[in-house]
Parts: sequence; structure tokens; C-alpha cells
Amino acid sequence: MSAPRIIRRQTGNFLEDFRPGQVFRHKGGKTITEGLFTTFTEFAMTSNPLAKNARYARAYGFEGLVCPPGLVMLVAFSQTVEDISENARTNREYVDMRFGAPVYVGDTLEVETKILSVVPHRKVPTLGIVHVQSTARKNVGSRDEAVVMTWQRKVDVFKRDDAAELHPGEADPDLVECELWLPAYDRGRDYKALAHLSSPDSYFEDFLPGTRIEHSRGRTMTSEHIHLTAVLDNTSQVHCNQFMIDQDPERYLGGQLIIFGGIPFTLCLGLSSKDVGDNALGDVVYPTGRHTAPLFAGDTVFAATEITGTRDYPGRDDLGLLECTLYGHKFERAAGETRTDAPSGWKKTTIFELERRIAVKRRSHYA
Amino acid sequence: MSAPRIIRRQTGNFLEDFRPGQVFRHKGGKTITEGLFTTFTEFAMTSNPLAKNARYARAYGFEGLVCPPGLVMLVAFSQTVEDISENARTNREYVDMRFGAPVYVGDTLEVETKILSVVPHRKVPTLGIVHVQSTARKNVGSRDEAVVMTWQRKVDVFKRDDAAELHPGEADPDLVECELWLPAYDRGRDYKALAHLSSPDSYFEDFLPGTRIEHSRGRTMTSEHIHLTAVLDNTSQVHCNQFMIDQDPERYLGGQLIIFGGIPFTLCLGLSSKDVGDNALGDVVYPTGRHTAPLFAGDTVFAATEITGTRDYPGRDDLGLLECTLYGHKFERAAGETRTDAPSGWKKTTIFELERRIAVKRRSHYA
Amino acid sequence: MSAPRIIRRQTGNFLEDFRPGQVFRHKGGKTITEGLFTTFTEFAMTSNPLAKNARYARAYGFEGLVCPPGLVMLVAFSQTVEDISENARTNREYVDMRFGAPVYVGDTLEVETKILSVVPHRKVPTLGIVHVQSTARKNVGSRDEAVVMTWQRKVDVFKRDDAAELHPGEADPDLVECELWLPAYDRGRDYKALAHLSSPDSYFEDFLPGTRIEHSRGRTMTSEHIHLTAVLDNTSQVHCNQFMIDQDPERYLGGQLIIFGGIPFTLCLGLSSKDVGDNALGDVVYPTGRHTAPLFAGDTVFAATEITGTRDYPGRDDLGLLECTLYGHKFERAAGETRTDAPSGWKKTTIFELERRIAVKRRSHYA
Repeated sequence: MSAPRIIRRQTGNFLEDFRPGQVFRHKGGKTITEGLFTTFTEFAMTSNPLAKNARYARAYGFEGLVCPPGLVMLVAFSQTVEDISENARTNREYVDMRFGAPVYVGDTLEVETKILSVVPHRKVPTLGIVHVQSTARKNVGSRDEAVVMTWQRKVDVFKRDDAAELHPGEADPDLVECELWLPAYDRGRDYKALAHLSSPDSYFEDFLPGTRIEHSRGRTMTSEHIHLTAVLDNTSQVHCNQFMIDQDPERYLGGQLIIFGGIPFTLCLGLSSKDVGDNALGDVVYPTGRHTAPLFAGDTVFAATEITGTRDYPGRDDLGLLECTLYGHKFERAAGETRTDAPSGWKKTTIFELERRIAVKRRSHYA
Repeated sequence: MSAPRIIRRQTGNFLEDFRPGQVFRHKGGKTITEGLFTTFTEFAMTSNPLAKNARYARAYGFEGLVCPPGLVMLVAFSQTVEDISENARTNREYVDMRFGAPVYVGDTLEVETKILSVVPHRKVPTLGIVHVQSTARKNVGSRDEAVVMTWQRKVDVFKRDDAAELHPGEADPDLVECELWLPAYDRGRDYKALAHLSSPDSYFEDFLPGTRIEHSRGRTMTSEHIHLTAVLDNTSQVHCNQFMIDQDPERYLGGQLIIFGGIPFTLCLGLSSKDVGDNALGDVVYPTGRHTAPLFAGDTVFAATEITGTRDYPGRDDLGLLECTLYGHKFERAAGETRTDAPSGWKKTTIFELERRIAVKRRSHYA
Repeated sequence: MSAPRIIRRQTGNFLEDFRPGQVFRHKGGKTITEGLFTTFTEFAMTSNPLAKNARYARAYGFEGLVCPPGLVMLVAFSQTVEDISENARTNREYVDMRFGAPVYVGDTLEVETKILSVVPHRKVPTLGIVHVQSTARKNVGSRDEAVVMTWQRKVDVFKRDDAAELHPGEADPDLVECELWLPAYDRGRDYKALAHLSSPDSYFEDFLPGTRIEHSRGRTMTSEHIHLTAVLDNTSQVHCNQFMIDQDPERYLGGQLIIFGGIPFTLCLGLSSKDVGDNALGDVVYPTGRHTAPLFAGDTVFAATEITGTRDYPGRDDLGLLECTLYGHKFERAAGETRTDAPSGWKKTTIFELERRIAVKRRSHYA
């Protein structure tokens, strides 16, 4: 045979490929197995019994163990990476991330994304900002489907050709019906008999706006992040291809494999869950969120939550709507530093911020 | 908004918090998913087909794959950590650890603990010994429950306030019915047709008191232990918070993250299973057990079993009761060492000891 | 008690133990749990929706998520390690590896191996080549079974005693019926409605003999390989016993833990799947395959596929038979190297080669 014709398959799109109004129906889809469920729910140290104790989840009116919002987000988001952000430098912002139907083991998620706009980066000519709207659905029965999550995000994507022109214009986001499904409150059910299974001090009545809760636990990340990212079908090479980094370390943030942002996203939710999420029936919406610093293997992640508001939950006496901001941070060695928010010789770096609105049980009805 | 009111949530109890007679119904509970089952059963290199081959397990009269005792112990024990030992220095002793109903995938375990006594440490004024009795149950149908495991342990817990007085007194352990469930021997069943699936040389007739079996395999631990510990909901920070260690390495054993004791517990059971546990139908009781040295990432774990007794199994001609002691060890570099039980330049360190009584099949009935 | 009688249990067979015609029915057997399925399917970055999306797999006529061939191979092969290759230096060659019935979550695989010949190594007197034929079956219903895979391999095994004589002779391989099961093509089904879930450019019509596809992604291996190997019940100590290596590093390849060959086998299949396997309904046969260099933690694995032939699939208008060779490679630092197939200062090392014949969908019928 003569010398083969060589094809180097490119993956993902570059900035100039995106057109406002364009819709991607993402490949693959993903069935939530018990393996995936356990890997991530437990990794994140989630403590809400809905995700740990099937007896509790069923007694509350769910069909079985409920995927925590961080897992739903990780699976749904990752489905969009190949088409949208495989050639991205960084994820800029999450906007209006809303949750709908509960996700159970056995459900299959499929995701589509609409391009809303493509604008040049103000400072870096090789980059631009793609603004997208994505929606994840699951099958219900053999014909129907339900929205489990919808969100917008803005992402910094590289150009393939620095001189390429971008597709102009702006598309309106679709109106996607996505309201958190909640099991009905059943006066005949003995919820109090289950009250010992969740935190005694994280009911709606326990939260006071203006409070900041420093969650006590930290979790050191290891090279496990490479495996975790692959499990999600996230194909971005900056998370798993050390050879690519070694060839040109200065091009890549920190000169090393960077941890996929979905990992601290779900880990911070988990680290906070004992204090904030244990008595939630679901996360309603994340109005905004962003990553503010990269995370690497060896870093230890901590979380804090600021309570910003407490409101009645429309139509539900048994619940309240908790408004808060979740922060993730890590500490970096910094000789000579003597700030008050870190031990001497260290500085505190915020890695993640997320506004959350959560449906939280009232003690009056459940304990 | 003015500066927020900051709350640092404390987790776990300290020595002076415990009162003899006090009962904790632990939070969470845990449903055994196929993900959890596989992660730990396989990690431990368990070779008993009851935990690997559903066809074999069903033919023996079980409902499906059977959780090995090490996994039941890990899950049940970990449920108690937040309340009992989150602020412990070390786990001192396991006492009278008995197994009852078999645990299958899909079962949900919930655990409670009674405080039996709280006594000061004889040498270290900041510590004391909490003696507890814990019991794990699973739901059977929608109403009933069955005891799957009950045990006592003694744990060295730190005081919050060095000057605090301890609650005096002693509570009797509850009488907990917990006898190993065993499938009936069915003379009509062709057990011999399955005999090739387990070791040919680990039937009851093969064991002779006074024998020590050095199990051939070793297993090197990696930083995977951080993930494994999180999967178990074990919240102790000495296993997963490197930043905490880095701030004051001398305070912590070895100045590094220490591997949760449940990991070598189940790993040593697994390393021994080919020689000792492959033809067991269940572990009956562990009269005593203790960790004798810490384990760190990078250490290679080995196991040995000393056969101490062989007795008839009450009411069962087809089984024998094997009494033995399981040892775990590792090797540490030690320049100049020339002992006979380790290669030159190394010393052997025992990390774990466990008395076991096991229900083992007789060759006469099964092969 | 007097000093115990010490038994050091040997595991596995040595070269002189094997007799042509001898048959091993391997211990254990293995039920495919959702945990095992997810761990490996996702680890390998497999992108064929049959292994990821249960809705898609069912619409195609499968019972549910389908184990990809790399996972079937890993599970089946590993069952043979203790008896055949626990004392092997290296796996020499795979021959005529054929696939039959599909494997689903919940299936239990059991494996047997026939020894075909045992011949001395031409250069190394402590080694010889064992040639074996292995077959994996699953239970179907309570009585029947189906062949899921059959293959031959040649493996370099150490002698226990250098002077031992080998069993002479040669046994014929058994005739094992093993033809790839394929769901019927159903003209009434709307396959096109699913076409967005797989790659648009990997239908049978897209492949041209003489083409080499360089798959774009790389994956860095970590010490995770120790866990992955244990999960498969592969008991070979060169993959997981660092202490054994540390005692005599020069005896072992690279002086460090070597990654089990099944790991790059399945990883290369996965890395290639987006370009080659996404629209396959199954792998038919691997005529030959071999590992050509060892892989260690820290190496980044890449893959390429050479298309060698395209043929009609007997009896199926909707499919074609794709013939190709899968290559795995890694890069090693090599000061002064300036070859054209690697960046300056690096050299490219082929680690794996596998001839494949795959049943691939035709665009004309499916998209």
C-alpha cells in the first residue's frame, strides 16, 4: 500500500463557526447509571438525604434517589462541550440556570443549544464571546419528554483564523418552560419520623439575611479530576492531555492540567449542603455564576454561603425560598502575607461564585 | 448590606458532649447503589463469588450479589463518624462486631449509636475514650426492618475545652438480636456444578489450627483514598483536607493525610479472601479488632491469617465455624535493619489485627 | 500456642504446569454492574451512543445500554489472568478475537480456557510461550447460555524451575460458534430521528481504504490504573505491588508499576470511537493484536486508525464491514530528536496495534 492519506480530525467549533440563531442538537445523550450517580454524588460530599437514602426520597414523594442539582448540571453541561466549548479558553458566566423535572437513575438526558450572539473580545483579538442558551430534556415514557434544566452561558472561544469575520446579529433566547417540580405536601404523611435523617439546623426558619456561613469542611483535589472529567464526556483537552501542555506550558493557565470548572461547581454545592442544602427539596434557579480563578490538583477547596434573602414560596406554606450566594475558595502560599482572612503566609483566593435560590422546608411542617 | 454576621459551623461532638445512655440516630442513611457496591467490592480485591457472580449467589439462596462484610462495615461505620468521631484522634478498638441480615444492592442502611461510657485518657489530658454501641438496620418491605450489623467501639476523642468535666457513669449495652442469616442447605441443589467458581483449597476441611497463611498479594494505596473516603460519607478532615495539615503538620500523625482505617480493614479482608474467605457463606462476628499503625498513600498493604480454631457450626452439618486472626502489614524502609521477617533494609509494621469467626462451607457438602 | 506452621500461598501457574489439551474453568465469574459499566465505558471516552444512551440503544433493538467491546474484552480477559498469566512477563499476541452475543448490565460472564501448546522461548531460558484459547459465556434465562467472546492469545510465562521440562504436543482449538449478534434492520423504524446523536462523518460511506485518521484527543494516565486493574479482578502483581518493585527495580520493566495492557486496549478503542466506532453496531473480530511498548502512569495515550478495507456485510444491505488497524502511541522525551512524527525533542512510541473488523451503519439507511 502506498503512504496513507492522513486525516487529522478536528473537534469542536471555533469562534467564526457560530451563527446567532444556530441550533445544535448535541450528540450522545447520557443515561444516568447508578455508577455515574454514585461517583459524583459522593465525590461532592452531598449530604441531602434525597440523594443518599431511597427510603427518605420515596417517603417525600419522589420515585427514588434524586440526582442533586450539581450532578444534573455536570451531565447536561458536559453534553454541550464538544460543540460549544471544546476550543474555549474559559467559561465566562452562567446566567439564569433553572431546574425543572427531577432526574432519577435510569433517566436519559439529551441537550440542545441555541447560539444567541458572537462578539469579539475587547482586548484579546484571538478570542470572542459566544452567548448560548442550552436546554436538557429527559424522556418520560416512550413518547414524552420533560425539561430538566435550561441555562445560558457566555464562553470565551478561540478563533481558528485570527482574521476571520464573525457572524453578526443577535437571536432571542427561546421561552423554555422550566419550573422546579416539587412533590406535594401531604398532611397525612409522618414527615417528623424522618426528621433525624437531615440537619436539625438548616430549615427555612434558621436562615437570616446578612449571615455568612463558613462551611467547616475542605476537600483536597487530586489527579482524580482527569477521570471524573472523562466520566462526564467532557472532551476538553486542557483537562486531560498532559503532553499537549508539556509542549507549550506557557500557553496554558498555570502550565498544568486545569480542573474542569464543573468539578468545583458541584463540590462547593456539596461542601455547603450540610449547612444549607440538607433540607432543600430542590434548587430553583442560579441567576448568575462564574469561575474567578483556576483550580489544580493538590488544591484544597472550601466553601461559604452568604444568605441574601428569605421569601415565601409561591403557593407553598410548607416551603420558603432561600436566596443566597455560594462562594468557593482555596488558599495559596504567599510569603509575607498577613491578611486576616487566611493564615499567615497564605492568601485566600476565591475560585467560584454562584447566586442560588433554593426551595427549603419549613421546620413548622417537617420537624 | 453591612458586613455579614459570620457563622462558623462546627461539626461533630467533642469529648465533653457525650453522655452515657445518650442515643444518636445518625443522619443521612445510605442506599447501596451498584456504583458503591462495585467501587468497594472490587477495590478490596474480594474474591468470594457471592459478591461477584449473581448466578452463583442466587443458586446459593441469596437474592442477588451479596455485600461483603467489609463493605457493610464501611457503610455502617461511616454513618457514625460525624456524630461520634469527627473530632477523634484515632479509633482504638472494635469489639463484638456481629453480622445479621444479608445486604443487597438497593438496601438502605440507617444506623444508631448509644454512648456507653466516657472516661479520661490516662496520659493525654486533652483526650478521652468514648465507648459506644452502634447498630445498622435495613428496611424490609415498607414497614419492617432487619439488623444487618451491630458493634461496639472505643475511640479517642478530643476535648473542646481542656478543662471541661466529663459526664460520669456507664450505660449497659442494649441486647441487640443479630445472628448471621444463612441460606438453608438444599440437598436437591447441584452445588458441585458451581464448585469451580471458588477456590479449591479453602473449604473448612482445609484449615488447621496453628497455621499462619501469608497471603501472596500486595496492594499499593494511592491518593484514591481521598475519594474512597468521601464516597463513604466519612467526613473526618484528617483524611481529605491537605490545607489543614499543611498549616500545622506536626500536630497530625505523619504530617500528611492519613488513610481512613476502614480502607485497610476492608482491603485486608479482600487480600485474604482467596485463601480464607472464598468458600465462606458469611462472617459471623469479629470479637476484637484494632489499628496498630497508620497507613499513608504510597504504602503497600499485605495480609496474613492465623488459624486459631475450627468448630462445628451449631445446627449446620454443611458448615464449620472457622476462628482466625487477620493481620495487615506494610514495610517501611529502615537502613541497617536485618530482621528475618522483612527484606534487608526494611522493617515490617503491623497495621491491623482482627479476630474473625467465619461460616465456611465443608467440601463434603459442596464440592 | 507454638510457632505457627507458615503457608505461603502461591497463586497462578508457571510454564511447566501447563499441558496441551488442559482446560481451565476460571473462578469467580463476573456480573456486570452499573458501577463497572460506568467506570470503564466512561474511562475509555467511548462515544458510541449504544453505550451511553439507553433510549438510542433500545430504539436500535438492543435491550438497553450495550457494553462496548473493550469492556467485554477487559472483563473476559481478566477472568483468565490468575490461572494463565499471573506469572507472565508479558502478553505477546491476541489472535482471532471474536464477539458474539451483546453484553448488558446484569449479565454474568464466566470464562474457560484451553491450553493449545507450550513451547520454550528461543532466547530466554526462564520463559516460554503458552498458546491458549479462551471463551466467555453469559447466562440466558436460568438454563441457557450464549458465547459473548472467544479468542486465542500467546503469553510469555516464567518457569518456576529453570530446569523443568515442558509438556510437549499441541491441541487443536475447539470450534466455538461465535458470530456477532446484530439487531435486525426495521424499515418501519425512524432511525433518522436519532441520527443527530452520533457522528455525522463516520458512516460506512465515509471510509476510504488507504486513509489514516489521527484521532485528535489524548488522555493522560494516572495512578488510577491500580484501581482500574483491581476492579477487573486482574491479580497480576506488576500492576499494583510497588513494594515488590522497590525491592528489585531492575527486574521489572521500567522499574515501576506497569499499566495492565487491557487499559490502553480499551482506551485506544475509546479515543478512536468518535471517528471510527460511533456508528458501529458492533465489533466483529480482531484478527491480531499486540502490545509493543509498556505504558506507565504519567504517559499520555493517543490513537490513530488506518482504514485497510471496506466490504459488504454478508446478508445486510444496511451495514458494511470496515477493516482497519488501530494504533496506540505515546511520546517520550528524547533530547536531540528531530523526527517528523513528533515535536522536536520527543519521539513517538507505538504501544499497541489491533486489526479490527467492524459492522458499520450505512448513511443510506440510517441518516
